[in-house]
Amino acid sequence: LRSESELTRRLAALAPIPPGSPIELGIGDDCAIYRTPKEDLLFTADMLIEGVHFLRETHSARDVGHKALARSLSDIAAMGGLPRFCLVALCVPEWADDRWVDGFFKGLNALALETGTALAGGDLSHGEKLACDVTVCGTVPRGKALLRSGARPGDQIYVSGPLGRPWQRHLRPEPRLAAGRLIRETLHATAAIDLSDGLSLDLHRLCLASGVAAEIANPPRFRGASVEQALHEGESYELLFTLNPRVGRAGSPRAIGNRPERAKLVRIGTILKGPPGEVRHNGLLLPALGYDHFRQK
Amino acid sequence: LRSESELTRRLAALAPIPPGSPIELGIGDDCAIYRTPKEDLLFTADMLIEGVHFLRETHSARDVGHKALARSLSDIAAMGGLPRFCLVALCVPEWADDRWVDGFFKGLNALALETGTALAGGDLSHGEKLACDVTVCGTVPRGKALLRSGARPGDQIYVSGPLGRPWQRHLRPEPRLAAGRLIRETLHATAAIDLSDGLSLDLHRLCLASGVAAEIANPPRFRGASVEQALHEGESYELLFTLNPRVGRAGSPRAIGNRPERAKLVRIGTILKGPPGEVRHNGLLLPALGYDHFRQK
Repeated sequence: LRSESELTRRLAALAPIPPGSPIELGIGDDCAIYRTPKEDLLFTADMLIEGVHFLRETHSARDVGHKALARSLSDIAAMGGLPRFCLVALCVPEWADDRWVDGFFKGLNALALETGTALAGGDLSHGEKLACDVTVCGTVPRGKALLRSGARPGDQIYVSGPLGRPWQRHLRPEPRLAAGRLIRETLHATAAIDLSDGLSLDLHRLCLASGVAAEIANPPRFRGASVEQALHEGESYELLFTLNPRVGRAGSPRAIGNRPERAKLVRIGTILKGPPGEVRHNGLLLPALGYDHFRQK
Repeated sequence: LRSESELTRRLAALAPIPPGSPIELGIGDDCAIYRTPKEDLLFTADMLIEGVHFLRETHSARDVGHKALARSLSDIAAMGGLPRFCLVALCVPEWADDRWVDGFFKGLNALALETGTALAGGDLSHGEKLACDVTVCGTVPRGKALLRSGARPGDQIYVSGPLGRPWQRHLRPEPRLAAGRLIRETLHATAAIDLSDGLSLDLHRLCLASGVAAEIANPPRFRGASVEQALHEGESYELLFTLNPRVGRAGSPRAIGNRPERAKLVRIGTILKGPPGEVRHNGLLLPALGYDHFRQK
């Protein structure tokens, strides 16, 4: 397979949303949008696969349950939404006994309770490898979801926290739900995306969707992380977003929320007119090296 | 793991729906229900796992894509709903090349177009085994979804077609969407469920949810299928439902819809007062032997 992005584009072309559908936004953003008279419903699905997204050796059952839900909640956060419910599909292999499955659902449910996400249903199967898919539905006021496509030349680019932590050590990531709502409601962000596939790839995607280019300096990073890691490492739960320059106050980071979900907004660059999707880092072209499931090795 | 039913009960107890949630119905029926001012939204998720639900040797990529969506649509049919959109999560192993993935989405999309289900989003990953999870959202008028819990003593029990076809030969099953809407809108069915896990287990579940017992005669079956197969074989896409005796006309099967989706409603028994979940077949207690992913062998 050539690349995840290419496959996604082909799917969107294969299956256009029919006219008159309540689907306001289909394939290609962090969530799909279903419009109701009262509000917009956001939908996202994310898989967690044994050996790909977690390791039995490093992740406890509770860690896996937590992370399975956190990945989808991060997409709701990126659109500035409030999570409402989830469906959990779980494929259980031989090695996962009753105790493991209980632990998985305890970890998932603790985060569900903390974030107001009702566990509404799902599916259970057996299989050779543990695989999980969590669908989350969230809400935003009609027309107010943060999209990838709204960035304009002159907008300032921010991240919600430090980057570059290796995902294997990232056992209980906190989706940036409070930050997502704040940047939507108070800062009126023009565009947003979560950094699940790494800054270089996700900023490229945001710029491509918005038809703009970008220049950035070094992003904030975890102690011990290299600039390369901060630029390309995936599995981050921080948000990348853009603010109109009248709103963004250059160089004035601000903190949001209480521990454990404490985000620190840091400006890292500017949106430019230019070839759509082109990103420069300290003046040099930045290749989109973030995580792609199907990149040729 | 003891059994899928037991695990489902434990999950429902672990994660009760919080008061004030728009979730009108959570874990335990064919779909969850999310209430909006305009209508009820139905949600269901179903996995399709390599080696469990399909075989590479017998199922083409298009068959797999068709079936992945058909399973979830069958749950929408069982509630009398109209499908609106789906999210598709697909974990792709090494053996599945571009051509296979294209075929998968062509098969899925053909059924999506035929049934008015927009492909709104999803997730792609790599992994060792092919695994797919399809979430479908459907709509019904507020409060009108067919539930498992509405059967009352004296109601007549029907199935929508013959049973007992081995699933390996069931390559492009047709979800009973037209039949589901007819039995809801015109026949005002009191309860319904799809027969994905087999008549004996699914009738037991419907009776348990309704607090009633049931007696049935031999169900209609495919040529060559034994009565045992018709009673216990899973992976059927027919609906099981109950009608108030004033509506049901005993012994008068009726056909619904056009080919390829042509359902023939056949009465197979009666709902009784009795131990909740107890089913008798030709006077003898019928064990709930249908398909359970976690039954001890």
